[in-house]
Amino acid sequence: MAQNNLRVIVVGGGAAGISAASTARTVNPEASVILFTEFEDVAYSPCGIPFVHGREIPNFESLFLQTSEHYAGIGIDLRLQTIVTGIDIKNRTVNVGSDVFKWDRLIIATGFEYEKPDIPGSDLEGLHYVKNIRRAMEFDKILDQIKKVVVMAATPLGIEMTGSLAHRGLETHLVDEGGWIMSKVADPDIVEPVQKSLEELGAKMHFGTKVLEFKGLNGKAKSVLTTNGEIECDVVIVATNKVPNNRLSRQAGLEIGATGGLLVDDHMRTSVKDVYAAGDCIEVIHGVTDLPIQGLSGSHAYSQGRVAGANAAGDDRSYDPVFIPWGMVGGKVQIGGVSLGETLHKALGIPHMVAAAQGISRARYYPGVSRIRVKLIADPKTLRVMGAQMSGGEGIKERADFLAFTIKRGATLKDFAWMENVYSPPIGALMEPIALAAQAGLAELAKRGYQPPKFAGAE
Amino acid sequence: MAQNNLRVIVVGGGAAGISAASTARTVNPEASVILFTEFEDVAYSPCGIPFVHGREIPNFESLFLQTSEHYAGIGIDLRLQTIVTGIDIKNRTVNVGSDVFKWDRLIIATGFEYEKPDIPGSDLEGLHYVKNIRRAMEFDKILDQIKKVVVMAATPLGIEMTGSLAHRGLETHLVDEGGWIMSKVADPDIVEPVQKSLEELGAKMHFGTKVLEFKGLNGKAKSVLTTNGEIECDVVIVATNKVPNNRLSRQAGLEIGATGGLLVDDHMRTSVKDVYAAGDCIEVIHGVTDLPIQGLSGSHAYSQGRVAGANAAGDDRSYDPVFIPWGMVGGKVQIGGVSLGETLHKALGIPHMVAAAQGISRARYYPGVSRIRVKLIADPKTLRVMGAQMSGGEGIKERADFLAFTIKRGATLKDFAWMENVYSPPIGALMEPIALAAQAGLAELAKRGYQPPKFAGAE
Repeated sequence: MAQNNLRVIVVGGGAAGISAASTARTVNPEASVILFTEFEDVAYSPCGIPFVHGREIPNFESLFLQTSEHYAGIGIDLRLQTIVTGIDIKNRTVNVGSDVFKWDRLIIATGFEYEKPDIPGSDLEGLHYVKNIRRAMEFDKILDQIKKVVVMAATPLGIEMTGSLAHRGLETHLVDEGGWIMSKVADPDIVEPVQKSLEELGAKMHFGTKVLEFKGLNGKAKSVLTTNGEIECDVVIVATNKVPNNRLSRQAGLEIGATGGLLVDDHMRTSVKDVYAAGDCIEVIHGVTDLPIQGLSGSHAYSQGRVAGANAAGDDRSYDPVFIPWGMVGGKVQIGGVSLGETLHKALGIPHMVAAAQGISRARYYPGVSRIRVKLIADPKTLRVMGAQMSGGEGIKERADFLAFTIKRGATLKDFAWMENVYSPPIGALMEPIALAAQAGLAELAKRGYQPPKFAGAE
Repeated sequence: MAQNNLRVIVVGGGAAGISAASTARTVNPEASVILFTEFEDVAYSPCGIPFVHGREIPNFESLFLQTSEHYAGIGIDLRLQTIVTGIDIKNRTVNVGSDVFKWDRLIIATGFEYEKPDIPGSDLEGLHYVKNIRRAMEFDKILDQIKKVVVMAATPLGIEMTGSLAHRGLETHLVDEGGWIMSKVADPDIVEPVQKSLEELGAKMHFGTKVLEFKGLNGKAKSVLTTNGEIECDVVIVATNKVPNNRLSRQAGLEIGATGGLLVDDHMRTSVKDVYAAGDCIEVIHGVTDLPIQGLSGSHAYSQGRVAGANAAGDDRSYDPVFIPWGMVGGKVQIGGVSLGETLHKALGIPHMVAAAQGISRARYYPGVSRIRVKLIADPKTLRVMGAQMSGGEGIKERADFLAFTIKRGATLKDFAWMENVYSPPIGALMEPIALAAQAGLAELAKRGYQPPKFAGAE
């Protein structure tokens, strides 16, 4: 299967690119693998940056996972600070300025960039985008010298930065057009404890508020003009939506999907033979709605890169539609879910019912116990669960993983309602909150006259 | 469906009895429900007792979940400190001394008792059994006045008491015949961190050590004579195995199973018409081995009680075979699992393979991150997972629930190996430890020449 002297080129050094390159070498140890990245580093965790700014993590050095030497050691030819200027499909080459590199297989992992605000003042100094670790190190020094920050957009990054900077003691304003944080994906009742927690940390919330202009003095941002007035600031964190970085791919003529992500099949093959793609620059199929979706987690990018790299090197692997367990910490509160919440089911006109309850994470008398709110969104006919949203003090990530795995396999409210669960005062309550939510949903249905089939322990 | 004036009698006021009585009243609000318990209280959490002794929980009052008035309010006739002295199947009555009570449906929830050590000195003062909350309150005062404790048997309770009393500052010895803690159900590699943690708390471990005699002075226990010498002590915690408390049921002629638990069908019906049973006094079917099993958690007792109470009151519910997610804290370490571990699979001669790995609970640079060791025990032909054992610093309960749910539904190593997971530095690592364990198992199989079918993201 392994083709000798196969030339693999990877464009991009994030999670997708790095896992693609590593896997290609593992699958075909004879392959030559060159990885180009415009940045100074590979294999650090950009997701950790907000927490260093927030001083939860002591320093940026902690975020590095591997050295460049490691990749040389496993046979990857790493070209740092090297900008690929063009992809030539016909001649099967990439250009780096005037240099030309031949490939037999090309893997595109060019990632994302933040949506640039199309308003006056976008070019002012003091607008900061959280992405590159070297820029973050410089920015962290600036944070020592300032007092007021505006965070633009209550995206996951915006929320993490708001919590981190408020925790650091800065006057932090979060400005978002929506009525609540992450209003495009999360439900208001689920995120409410996060908003409270951010406020308790001292952050100021500005919802239903559109940023109109960044105003500056001597070329530096000094305030943000919004539909609800002007907010003074020393810097602005632009935490807008991520959009796929596909300039090169567009120029090369690769097909782009409806979301702006590169079209790939279940083998991470683009529209052009021998060209693969993975990570934030592609779109993949969502398992519940069958719609394309884009901009997932580092964990997704890593898995996609592995499939792309393996197949580029001669293997035959596929990637399943995604169900997207997600989770994060906002303030001191964990929130998370799987696939779509109630808000998006409504917006998309998908028939659904909500099964919700509040449970607890430990015995109610045990120190450290916290409330866990679970909402399951289910098909009202089949009772199959389609999505979930949760908030609580602990255990949200593990529950989201559990629900994604079981939603993928067709679990229903009845399956969850009488599930067995661990009961041990320091780590688990008598009744699992997921089961309580499912029970509440079934009880609600019964009141409305729905006759569920008999099942274990049904009440 | 509801029969008017149905007379339901419940014997036992633990989790099973209380949930049976409550559910019977919910299903048939016309039923008269009498609940007899020999104890002073109902509806407290006996599982919390060790943690009050350990001063993790401030007081015993915290453990009470409901008042007796609450049960009167929902129409349960609660008879505290009332010992049922006989069950008469033919006349459908129970006796309380010379008083006779008629039943149309009887629910037996007589729970467990500790296996009494059959050695000299078993009647000495100073031998303490952790069960009743009033005895625990008295015992707690004694703990203030003493220095040295021997805990007999490294059962879950023995481990919790050892950790709690060491944490309280007492010289605490844990004595067990097995080679490691919970040696009958847990694997040595999984419990090793618990043993270390208990030792760090100052507890002394005595494994492979059989208790031969309790030695006393003036009728009070003063030392424990073991196969490895004598250990001085002020009190002994007898934390031996739990055995079903079925004296009454035996006398009444109800059929008892191989484990000593009452035989019930999937409706919690005993061998006698209109007599139901639930909780620690019964045996149920284990979903993986199809063998009867006995002595599960308070959560199981509660669920069984619900089914028994509902059916006794005229409903038609069933109870599934159990897969038994379990979890607990030993020292500062969480351990848990589902069904059987490697040790028991070996002992029972069940063909199996082990897929194991060590992962982390958060990003490796995030404060509070802990190692999570996962062992999946799988059928080497179908790759279906049959059991699991885990240890770690957080998230063990949630993972055990997840694995029990999915093992019940036939999940394989391949399903787990490339599962989607939440990645967010404060709450979840790039790769879920369960997935890492499954990947390791598949890699091991591949080395040995096994060709797994193709699947999503296979490596």
